[in-house]
Order: sequence, then C-alpha cells, then structure tokens
Amino acid sequence: MSAPQTGEAASPLQICRIMWPDDANVAGNVHGGNILKMIEEAGCIVGTRHCNTQNGDRCLAALVRVEKTEFLSPVFIGEVTHVTAEITHTSKHSLEVQVKVMAENILTGAKKLANKAALWYVPCSLQNVDKIMEVPPIKYASAEQEEEGRKRYEAQKMERLETKARPEEMMPSPPNPEDPPKEKHTVGFSQSSLIHLVGPSDCTLHDYVHGGVTMKLMDEVAGIVAARHCNTNIVTASVDAINFHRKIKKGCVVTVTGRLTFVSNKSMEIEVLVDASSVVEAEKGKYRAVSAFFTFISLDKDNKPLPVPALKVEGEDEQRRFDEGKVRYLQNKEKRLSDKMRGQ
Amino acid sequence: MSAPQTGEAASPLQICRIMWPDDANVAGNVHGGNILKMIEEAGCIVGTRHCNTQNGDRCLAALVRVEKTEFLSPVFIGEVTHVTAEITHTSKHSLEVQVKVMAENILTGAKKLANKAALWYVPCSLQNVDKIMEVPPIKYASAEQEEEGRKRYEAQKMERLETKARPEEMMPSPPNPEDPPKEKHTVGFSQSSLIHLVGPSDCTLHDYVHGGVTMKLMDEVAGIVAARHCNTNIVTASVDAINFHRKIKKGCVVTVTGRLTFVSNKSMEIEVLVDASSVVEAEKGKYRAVSAFFTFISLDKDNKPLPVPALKVEGEDEQRRFDEGKVRYLQNKEKRLSDKMRGQ
Amino acid sequence: MSAPQTGEAASPLQICRIMWPDDANVAGNVHGGNILKMIEEAGCIVGTRHCNTQNGDRCLAALVRVEKTEFLSPVFIGEVTHVTAEITHTSKHSLEVQVKVMAENILTGAKKLANKAALWYVPCSLQNVDKIMEVPPIKYASAEQEEEGRKRYEAQKMERLETKARPEEMMPSPPNPEDPPKEKHTVGFSQSSLIHLVGPSDCTLHDYVHGGVTMKLMDEVAGIVAARHCNTNIVTASVDAINFHRKIKKGCVVTVTGRLTFVSNKSMEIEVLVDASSVVEAEKGKYRAVSAFFTFISLDKDNKPLPVPALKVEGEDEQRRFDEGKVRYLQNKEKRLSDKMRGQ
Repeated sequence: MSAPQTGEAASPLQICRIMWPDDANVAGNVHGGNILKMIEEAGCIVGTRHCNTQNGDRCLAALVRVEKTEFLSPVFIGEVTHVTAEITHTSKHSLEVQVKVMAENILTGAKKLANKAALWYVPCSLQNVDKIMEVPPIKYASAEQEEEGRKRYEAQKMERLETKARPEEMMPSPPNPEDPPKEKHTVGFSQSSLIHLVGPSDCTLHDYVHGGVTMKLMDEVAGIVAARHCNTNIVTASVDAINFHRKIKKGCVVTVTGRLTFVSNKSMEIEVLVDASSVVEAEKGKYRAVSAFFTFISLDKDNKPLPVPALKVEGEDEQRRFDEGKVRYLQNKEKRLSDKMRGQ
Repeated sequence: MSAPQTGEAASPLQICRIMWPDDANVAGNVHGGNILKMIEEAGCIVGTRHCNTQNGDRCLAALVRVEKTEFLSPVFIGEVTHVTAEITHTSKHSLEVQVKVMAENILTGAKKLANKAALWYVPCSLQNVDKIMEVPPIKYASAEQEEEGRKRYEAQKMERLETKARPEEMMPSPPNPEDPPKEKHTVGFSQSSLIHLVGPSDCTLHDYVHGGVTMKLMDEVAGIVAARHCNTNIVTASVDAINFHRKIKKGCVVTVTGRLTFVSNKSMEIEVLVDASSVVEAEKGKYRAVSAFFTFISLDKDNKPLPVPALKVEGEDEQRRFDEGKVRYLQNKEKRLSDKMRGQ
Repeated sequence: MSAPQTGEAASPLQICRIMWPDDANVAGNVHGGNILKMIEEAGCIVGTRHCNTQNGDRCLAALVRVEKTEFLSPVFIGEVTHVTAEITHTSKHSLEVQVKVMAENILTGAKKLANKAALWYVPCSLQNVDKIMEVPPIKYASAEQEEEGRKRYEAQKMERLETKARPEEMMPSPPNPEDPPKEKHTVGFSQSSLIHLVGPSDCTLHDYVHGGVTMKLMDEVAGIVAARHCNTNIVTASVDAINFHRKIKKGCVVTVTGRLTFVSNKSMEIEVLVDASSVVEAEKGKYRAVSAFFTFISLDKDNKPLPVPALKVEGEDEQRRFDEGKVRYLQNKEKRLSDKMRGQ
C-alpha cells in the first residue's frame, strides 16, 4: 500500500514510546489492547489535524470503525513501539487512516512488524458533537489509488449498514457468583465482564471516551475469557472489524462482556459486547455502543502456540454462534492462504 | 444476608478485574487498599444509580462510612476479583451498600471469599455539593429485614456522632531529620507519611476525591509502617470502621500519616490520620478528613503468620494509645470467637 | 546546534503523544514535569539504543545530569507534543543527548517551541548496575563540532564534581503541626513535601526509578510551593542544571521537599531536595539522591506574567540562600540578554 500524495497537514505521523510494566501481562507480553490504544491515538491525531485545515467549526476525528487487524509478533516490556499513521482515503464525511506498528528491542536493535491496521474516522464539531463536518480531500498519487480507496470506502460502508440492521445480540446474563460453578470448557464457564466508570482521564478534547480506551477494555475482557478457558499465557492474535455504533460520554458506566463463540485447534474466538448507561440518567437505559470478535492464541514459555481445549457447546444459540464463528475462521484461513500465494 | 426486593436500579452490581503487578507488593500479595478501592467503586456506582431514579437534581453517592472489615484470604497478581455490591438499607438521606469480594484463580478455577464490607453513602447534588438529596426507599423482603437494617443504621449513626464529639487526636509530629535516629521497634522508628497532590484521575464526576482513593493511600502508609517495624512481607488483616468526616477537593495536598499504636504476638495495629489542605486557600488551614485503625500481620514464604517484634512504648501518650489498642484487640478477638461459636 | 554525522543506531528519535487531563493542572497548563519526563524517555531510548550497538553486557543509559533548561511556551490539554532526541557528544563513559520539544495545536495547526534540553547519560550494565560500560564513539560533522562537545563535556564534569564537594544542604526541617501557623509569604509558609513509595510502574528495564519520574515529582512539589506563595495559576519557567547523585531503587520511600530561596518581581526560585530511604533496610538511612532549582512564574487568565509577592526572609540561612539565588537570577538574566544580542 503506497501512500497518496498529501499536503503538509495530511503528512504521516509517528508516535513512539517505551513499553512499561503496566502495559504488559505477567509473562511480559504487551497487551494487544495497548497496541490498539496507541494505534487509535495516532489515527485520531492525524485525522483531527487534517480535518481542521479548512474553515468552519473546530472538530475532532471520532473513530467509527477499525478494519480487521492482526498481531503479527508479540511486543515485550522495555521495547520501543513506533506507530506510523497516514491518511489514505477521504470521502465527503469520513477518512481512512492506515497505521503500521513496529516494535524495536533497543538492547539488540532487532525490529519487527507488530501490527498493520486501517481505521475510519468522522469529524464531529466541538461546538455540537452531533454535527458531522466535511473532510478536506487529499491528493492521490494515481487514479488507481483513488479508485482502490473508494472501493474500500464502499465496502466498509455497506458492512457498517449491515451491522446496524442485524438484530442486536442479547447481552449475556452475568453469572451469579453464588450459583454452582459451571462445567469447565463450557461457554458459561469462561464468560466474563468488566465494569468501568468513565472518568475525566478517559477523555481529552471533548467529554467522550476515546475509541482506543474502549478497545483496551475490550481486549482486557477477551484476555480474561481466554485465560479462563485454557489456563495458560494467552495473547491477542487478531481482531475482526469493529464498528463504533454510538458514543460513550463521561459519567457513563461501561459494561464490557466477553464470551467464547468458537474454538479451533489453536485459537479462540471471543465475542465482546460493550454496553453503556449513564449513572445519573438511569431512565435513558443501557445501549449497545460497540461489539467485536477477538481471536486469542495460547503460548508456551518460548512463545510457541499451544493446543486449545475444545469448547463444550450447550444449546441452540451457542451452536449457532459456534457455526458462524467457524465460517469466519475458515474464511480468514482461506484469505491468509491466498494472500500468501499472491506473495503479499 | 439475604437481599431485599429492589427495583432495577437498585439491583446488585458486579465489578471484576484482573489484579496487575501495580496492585500488589513485591511478594505478589494484592494490597488491601486496592481491594478497598474496588469495593468503594462498586458501592459508588450502585448508590449513585439508585439515587438518580427520582426527579430532582442529579447527584453522586458520597462515601461517609465503611464498617469494620476483614481480609479473609490473600489475593495474588493474575487473579480475578469479583466485587458484588447491593443496596441493603435506605434511610431518608443515606443508604447502606453491602459488598462481597471473591477472588478467582483463573488458571486453577479456585475461588475464595476475600472480603465482606458494608458502606454508607449520602447523595450530594452535582449542582451544589453541600446539598444532601433524599434517597428513594427500597422494598424489603420482610419486616424483619427492614428492622435489622434500621438497627444497623442507628448504630452507625451513633458511632459517627461519637467520633465527631471525641477530641481530635493531634497529628503526630513528623520526625526532625537532625535528631539522632530513633531506636528500633519504637513508635517513632516506624512512623511514616505519604504526601500526595490530588489530581484529576483521583476524582470522577465531581471535583472531589473518591473515598476509595483515600483508603488506598491509607493502606499504603500503614503497610510502610508495618514493613519498617518487622522487615518482612506484611499484609492487611482488617480495618476498623472508617468515618469520612470531610470531603477532599481536587487541588488539595493530602498528608497521610501512620504510626503503630498496639502490637500483639502476631498483629500490629496502625493508626492512620488523613489531613488535607488547599494549596491556594492556605487561610483555611489543614483539616482532619479521615482517620482509622488498620491491622496488619506478617507472613512467611508460605503465607503463614509470623511473630511480630514487641513494641517499645515511650511516654504517657504512647502508653495510653497502646492500652486503648489492646482493648480493641481483645474485643475483636472475643467477637470473632463468639461469631465462630454461633456457627457464622 | 547542527547535528553530528551519526550511524543508524545514533540517529535522531522522535516521541510524540496527545496531552491528557492527567498531564495538566486545573488551568489546563501541562505540568513542566510531564514535559521533563517525556524528554528523559526520549533521551533514555536514544542513549540505550546507541550503547548497545557493541559487544559486551547489555546496558541501560542512566540519567546523570540535565543541563539548565527553559520552558519557552505553555502546552495545553489536547495538544500534541513532539519530542526529538539526538546524541550530540560521546566521551569514554558518557554521552550527551540534545532534545527539542515542539507543541502542536491539532485544531489550528499552530506549532511552537516548548523546550530545548541537554542530558548526560552513563551506560549501566543490566547484569551489574554498578558497572559502567564504554560508550561507542559517534562521528562528528566537523572537528569544531567535536571540540565544542568536548568543552561542554568538561564543563559539566567540573560542575558535577563541585556539587559533590559542596557540603550537603541540610534537609529543611518539616513544619511542626503544633507550632502556630507561619506568617504569609515567609519561606516556612509555603515549604512543602511530597512522599511517594516507588512502585513497579516507576521503573522499566531494571529495578531503578527513571530520572524522568523523579523530575516529575520535583516539578510537582515546586508547583505546590509556588501556588502557596502566590495563590494563582503558576507554571514552570526554567530548571537549573540537575545532577542525579545516586540511584533510587524500587521499594524506596522518596521524600521530595521544596522551599522558596529567591523571589524577583515576576519569578520564584524554588530549591527542591530529593531524599530516598529503603523501607526494609532502615539501617542504611536516608540519602540525598537529587537536588535542583526550579523557577516558576505566575500567570493571569491570558497567560501573561503577574507580579509575585515579595519573600519575607527570616534568619541568616534564608538570607544566604536568598543572596545566592539573586546571583543566579542576575547571571541568568545577563546570559539571556547576551544570547539575544548574539541573535541566538
């Protein structure tokens, strides 16, 4: 993917920082969620900067979608991550940012590609957060490049509409700690929730949570589910496309729930649902803000993949979700294979 | 403790999260203060949500008291703690939340009861923090249950009044660095302070410090005192009832001081005093915001209690505090014994 | 300052990130201490990376000195700071890193120079933290450039030796709470301390506190002193050279104390002393780890400097420190003037 020609404001941006103990699990692996948070921070900067290069209200680039992304190699405490973000397509009201994450071991000098992602942003006016601003167009290196971008734009637009039309997956009922323990390796056994009260330090320029903060929580709950299922060191392998349906405001309570949907020999697919409700405006009720599928793998001490225990599926709903997960798994596998054969 | 019948808003709330290295001491034991902070977060959410189910100003449930609580089993890094909070009594202007903490080893599946606590909250208007709102009543399962709640309410109210009436314990004079070093195992030897500037992340919906943040600092200083006295791995065993006399605002400097008051064969009682002062409104002076007694024990490598070095008491004041501590120690011991005999 | 020719490993490094509410004071001004922390993180990365390009033990670049630095313009929440670090001189056992901080308003596109700093690092073996490794030499663009670097190296070396030889300034005696309150605008009135327990998230690759973490605490306490003296919005204007005499290990309690030494019409000089002591090895006693002079100014609502109340000096020691501070103030003023005339 070569970059389109862009003006100064749309020029690539690089974020980098040392990974601290707080960023990693006990095995020293940096959480995928922290990588996603850095990716989103870079995307938000480059997008916001670009959308403010015209007259009109000041605005903030708000994340509406992250395309499917894979974690290509693990990152460790003490390594330096370099996140490069670049605007690669603009439509009238949205823009695409492509992001690359390199991890550098500053002791050995070794560098590796850790992640590649594509994010879609929409500029929201800071005066009125519901007003979507126009996006200044970028220049493309070639007509082909522009055309490819347009195709990606159309594809994600359709997919986002579809997701909206789909009946909302019921929120799983939280397990009562006094219930008898579930049978091991069932869906109910590993289902988990995190609940977080959105505070000022989750927000910057307006009073809404950054998409990166939400993704970090989602990855955290998916990690708990995966660890419960296989009792080993687990890491994020990939995340399916995430759509951010609705914004989450400061003062909301966010419930992030994860449950296994599908398990292959060496991977687990976890569905994560994010529901928000205002603490002080209870009458507004809970609403679904985000949902996504995370894939985790289990690693041994040398960071080699371990087999994963089979999932004990119970009931029709679990079976349906399992079958749907299997379809996604096989599609991804096929796509990886064909990408490889095309030498990509 | 069976739950009263409640509407949706008063329904139990469950918070859960993984314990990180930052939550624990070097031996891997999660600080009691972090458990207290989670307990308070759950209580604040469930209380705030309930108090906003009626018309009138939006309000926040502010912590005014935590009943005596015991740490029943140690929690370790990597474990998942589940905190369940439920409103169990309401008076006109306050409500009681009972909280239970389970710790789960997600690798082995083992669960244990880590803590049980009862907290009292008062709803403060977000428009005017000094205006106390009314609390919507909950429904009780039985008249007995309501009656028991009322008794707990009256008991804590009396105790809070008593604490207010008691002459304020003078802040221990900080050690003068030019003095010769104190003798080991004296009160002065292990007396410690932490001083912290209240920042945005210590507060959430209004500009006041969460009770949980204060309790975490209190536990931290008590841990330093205990470690200085016995030079071993120490953990929080219990905390006496804590009354939150006055609120602490963002921008205040908080001085948290701990000193040994009493030492038995296997436990240390540490008095912790919290004083706050505004940085920019010096004329208001320092004020005592909170005070409490923490009990710590010393553990060997297998988490078995170790003997604690005797306390060298110097002067009348230290002797008086030692004798008062001994009374509390014997009362607690007796109470634990009678609870046990009643099969609780 | 033009850059020397350097190999890949010594190439400039750029760190950048959004400023969050937690990074700033209530007026929205990002704390100078957070800028210093980012500067040190960039310096540590570029230094560590360079020192590991040779055979021998893996090592970490440990901060030993920061040259006098000025905060040229305020930075605000939501702005993006870009920190560029570059190795500009190497001696056998130390290296100089020059760092530049640009702040960018991503809404308006405005950029401003926020800080320029020079830091000295020494590579410590990760196997044995007391073993100082050799620094691989860099290539210089010209003999002149090398010569200038050598002069800076000699100058800072001499100054560090001098600081060591100087009798250690006694730690200011903490105020006794039973004393009557101090008179306003005296040294004693605004003297302040912070006390912090060093945790895992203050350290990365080894178990010692990062210099940047210490500088952040120092700036925080200096800010409290300044706010107490003039009750207004205050910001860091400059920091005199800081020498890091001794390392601070995980598990230490750090006492950071600040007191006014000199006040001019529009600025305050605050001396900050950092003392560390191990919690469990009390016999080792407290030791002075760092000391420095911070200069703060007071700002009105439009970020224009306000007059500062005069300092009421009491006793010989305070007068001596005041006179010494005045000498530093006049020297700095003269230097700024001559720099200006040289058009630098």
